[in-house]
Amino acid sequence: MIPGHEFVGEIVELDEAAAKRWNVNVGDRVVAEQIVPCGECRYCRRGDYHMCAPHTLFGFQRVTPGAMASYMVFPAEALVHKISKSVKPWHAAYAEPLSCALHAVERANIRFDDVVVVAGAGPIGLGMVAGARAKNPRVLVVLDYDERKLAVAKKCGADITINVGKEDAVQKILDLTGGYGADIYLEGTGHPAAVPQGLKMLRKLGTFVLYSVFKEDVTVDWSIISDDKELDVLGAHLGQNCWPAAIKMIESGILPLDEICTHQFPLSDFQKGLDMVDAGTESIKVSLIP
Amino acid sequence: MIPGHEFVGEIVELDEAAAKRWNVNVGDRVVAEQIVPCGECRYCRRGDYHMCAPHTLFGFQRVTPGAMASYMVFPAEALVHKISKSVKPWHAAYAEPLSCALHAVERANIRFDDVVVVAGAGPIGLGMVAGARAKNPRVLVVLDYDERKLAVAKKCGADITINVGKEDAVQKILDLTGGYGADIYLEGTGHPAAVPQGLKMLRKLGTFVLYSVFKEDVTVDWSIISDDKELDVLGAHLGQNCWPAAIKMIESGILPLDEICTHQFPLSDFQKGLDMVDAGTESIKVSLIP
Amino acid sequence: MIPGHEFVGEIVELDEAAAKRWNVNVGDRVVAEQIVPCGECRYCRRGDYHMCAPHTLFGFQRVTPGAMASYMVFPAEALVHKISKSVKPWHAAYAEPLSCALHAVERANIRFDDVVVVAGAGPIGLGMVAGARAKNPRVLVVLDYDERKLAVAKKCGADITINVGKEDAVQKILDLTGGYGADIYLEGTGHPAAVPQGLKMLRKLGTFVLYSVFKEDVTVDWSIISDDKELDVLGAHLGQNCWPAAIKMIESGILPLDEICTHQFPLSDFQKGLDMVDAGTESIKVSLIP
Amino acid sequence: MIPGHEFVGEIVELDEAAAKRWNVNVGDRVVAEQIVPCGECRYCRRGDYHMCAPHTLFGFQRVTPGAMASYMVFPAEALVHKISKSVKPWHAAYAEPLSCALHAVERANIRFDDVVVVAGAGPIGLGMVAGARAKNPRVLVVLDYDERKLAVAKKCGADITINVGKEDAVQKILDLTGGYGADIYLEGTGHPAAVPQGLKMLRKLGTFVLYSVFKEDVTVDWSIISDDKELDVLGAHLGQNCWPAAIKMIESGILPLDEICTHQFPLSDFQKGLDMVDAGTESIKVSLIP
Repeated sequence: MIPGHEFVGEIVELDEAAAKRWNVNVGDRVVAEQIVPCGECRYCRRGDYHMCAPHTLFGFQRVTPGAMASYMVFPAEALVHKISKSVKPWHAAYAEPLSCALHAVERANIRFDDVVVVAGAGPIGLGMVAGARAKNPRVLVVLDYDERKLAVAKKCGADITINVGKEDAVQKILDLTGGYGADIYLEGTGHPAAVPQGLKMLRKLGTFVLYSVFKEDVTVDWSIISDDKELDVLGAHLGQNCWPAAIKMIESGILPLDEICTHQFPLSDFQKGLDMVDAGTESIKVSLIP
Repeated sequence: MIPGHEFVGEIVELDEAAAKRWNVNVGDRVVAEQIVPCGECRYCRRGDYHMCAPHTLFGFQRVTPGAMASYMVFPAEALVHKISKSVKPWHAAYAEPLSCALHAVERANIRFDDVVVVAGAGPIGLGMVAGARAKNPRVLVVLDYDERKLAVAKKCGADITINVGKEDAVQKILDLTGGYGADIYLEGTGHPAAVPQGLKMLRKLGTFVLYSVFKEDVTVDWSIISDDKELDVLGAHLGQNCWPAAIKMIESGILPLDEICTHQFPLSDFQKGLDMVDAGTESIKVSLIP
Repeated sequence: MIPGHEFVGEIVELDEAAAKRWNVNVGDRVVAEQIVPCGECRYCRRGDYHMCAPHTLFGFQRVTPGAMASYMVFPAEALVHKISKSVKPWHAAYAEPLSCALHAVERANIRFDDVVVVAGAGPIGLGMVAGARAKNPRVLVVLDYDERKLAVAKKCGADITINVGKEDAVQKILDLTGGYGADIYLEGTGHPAAVPQGLKMLRKLGTFVLYSVFKEDVTVDWSIISDDKELDVLGAHLGQNCWPAAIKMIESGILPLDEICTHQFPLSDFQKGLDMVDAGTESIKVSLIP
Repeated sequence: MIPGHEFVGEIVELDEAAAKRWNVNVGDRVVAEQIVPCGECRYCRRGDYHMCAPHTLFGFQRVTPGAMASYMVFPAEALVHKISKSVKPWHAAYAEPLSCALHAVERANIRFDDVVVVAGAGPIGLGMVAGARAKNPRVLVVLDYDERKLAVAKKCGADITINVGKEDAVQKILDLTGGYGADIYLEGTGHPAAVPQGLKMLRKLGTFVLYSVFKEDVTVDWSIISDDKELDVLGAHLGQNCWPAAIKMIESGILPLDEICTHQFPLSDFQKGLDMVDAGTESIKVSLIP
């Protein structure tokens, strides 16, 4: 299996059916959504192609080899989008996490009067910040441990940043909201501690959007969801119908993409890249250039 | 502090303002919602009186003594509803858990085509069964360990009952739904194991309604909510705008109330009643008669 | 073109693919949804097959001849459902209008506390009554000019019937609701006068569900929708995902189907049937038996 | 009765209760929402204060004299908001129509992938453009007859402007959307012709938000709402919970307020101002300076 589900490339060959299906030509630069939906399952038939039951993803199954390669073949079911050649390739590949983040933002149903908190200023969290900024809530707050990432979050549109390692974030959000708590909390860290943090800083009847994949189980008081606050905890996965918006945002130049996409390595140095992501001290988004 | 937040009584005295406010008279039989909303906080002002910030409840604070007493005084902010004298008093007092259960059902937004699972056939769970029945989904399934309670659930409208002590409930729900899983899961047990059970038996994009109060933290894989299934986990608390419906349902005679309200004791035997509820082997709903 | 979009039949021949697709066999009795969705347009791909762009319907286009014939051929895209042989064929064919009515009811999002008004007690209106009854609102009111139809509406579950030819229906609804107006109004008459009637009898922030096809334009003050009441006016068309529920309701025996399906004629007498529907004085639903 | 429901002023006197209630002091510049809600009716108690049943508005009833005066008295039920002294007073008074426009935008529930059309580039329409821009849909189109207003709409954030007097707007929207039609149509003209225009240019399952007050009845084919397109037609009235966002937007300086608020007259020249608005050829927003 060849990994790699965030990528960009140029079309070198395609048949007529493909040209018509995706409205593209040889020489066009394109991205493809990570999921290759079956089109047949109940989810696909109801428009929820991102939850496709067989769930074939580029780079996760043998039938759909990923992008750590010289060439990729897009099957007919792939969802291919054109993207401008004027953006750097590693910026173009950011369409994948950004579309996921935008989908999480859509799930949040942000209103003009909302206080919105984004937990985490990694590649997904920064996309959430950019997406939440694009909905213009009353206040947009970002939480992280890393001042460097918080500075990038500011450039993505955060009104307020809180270093959770130095400040009592829950208390600060309560102070900011007359003791009520935030209206919306977008979880983008994948760290178990971010769950109770969100449950505590939300107001009653608030909305908790959960995008993350957690490496371990989360232990928390579920009575906060029901008895204490009657929350909406809404999961989010992939980027349903959000790729065009992500691509448009990348092409528009409003994102500090050089600061989000911090490192690029040749594919041969992939281990160096993986180690850097693992360490998490220097990089935000690391890209491999095949 | 005097406990007791589920009760019924007859009006022995009231002033003109109260008579007009609640449209009641001396001699009427009434129930009052457990919450006495402040009317001033942000939640009250937005119509979400059940999440009132000070959250004064009959039987939980000194200012609002509960029903384990000869008389109760309803403050002006209380929400008082008439109920027919033709129903037994312990049936009338069931309006409290039933209104909570109906609110949980409203949160679930049941559609005609849904497969709905209710976990637990105690007083809340049976109310959820009755409420879900009243929305007429495609299939209504009830889970419990106790055959006796499952039999009552059938009378409340369950299509299928599963004894989770004897059968693999998750597998049965998957078999019932072509491998997809249930559309809606209503948690009414308060037992931590009911959380992973629900997450497992729901389909992708399903809805998990959580009413319960848990005595202990719940440890579970939160990635099921986001990455695996993109679920809606919706909390529910108290019975916002559902008391009239609960009272109407009780008065209608469609519920097997004698089998839900299994035991009544004089107030002096309250310890016997509490012990019986604690044991949970004989009773469903135990009432005290002051 | 052969008309006929409400029908039932027995399978006389099918290939293996069809047997697997619809889970049916020779000898089974089936209905098919009126729409034969393309599966390719934007609506189909988002699950809204009932709004399919090409919009091919049995009995409305040459490619999909309707049921006024000895045999029908179901194309692969047809949506075929089994229905019990224990119901009369004209009752089985009622699945078409009933599924449409149930979809309109789903659009209404009925809550336990709602006062719901259905305008019209013809085949669609009676289906709306049955569907609204299945959601158990506080009060269900039905309006019509015809006492005979109102009597059937009662059997379909109406709490209150109002003869709009004899009584001031708007005033009665206002009286019933403390001067506020109804929460939900389901339009099932197709008569222009039913539009201002609904706008007037709804409360502010109420919901107007419009199923009907109107023969002529409607002239009405649109400021009621915006400035006066901030209404939700929600269109409804066909029976998206509601056929299983309609079939189940028909098979269950709870509907007074002999009184809804009033007349049956041999296909050769089709003109007699059409005239009777046109006159509208004797019949509710008229069926032709090929 | 003194008219005037859009205004700004400086506090010259207030008691302690008022200071606490609104968090303001003598010398502060404030606006008040046009509605003075009763706090007692069913709408107020459910948070829908903008639909308050008695519906007392500044400048529309004798009990709440409006702003065409030297001083105003705010009753306790008024909703008062501080606004910066750094903005021009006629810009500050634009908070009223802008909050209304933002509420209409909230009703539209704009998604990143939507094609949004605003009909009309008067004071309300331009507010809708600014509000829709703040939600960042895929494309934002504005329609008007007046090139001058369309130029201001561009500065408010429109991507595309269409002069409906010179171009076939319906055809242009269909061309722009692959023949499907727009996702959302916001009506801000009050002209009857804008209703069929919107119904025609929306896609099936689209959303029509109606803010306008119409001087005359609208005659249109209602079957488009139901049978043809299954639309959501959503009314909007006043600015529920949108005043803080409107004030923030005005203070932020992103709006071309000098071009929206085109004319100011002394109160003594009020007739000149009213005539100018009536003519509608030179002005957009006309303000009176008492």
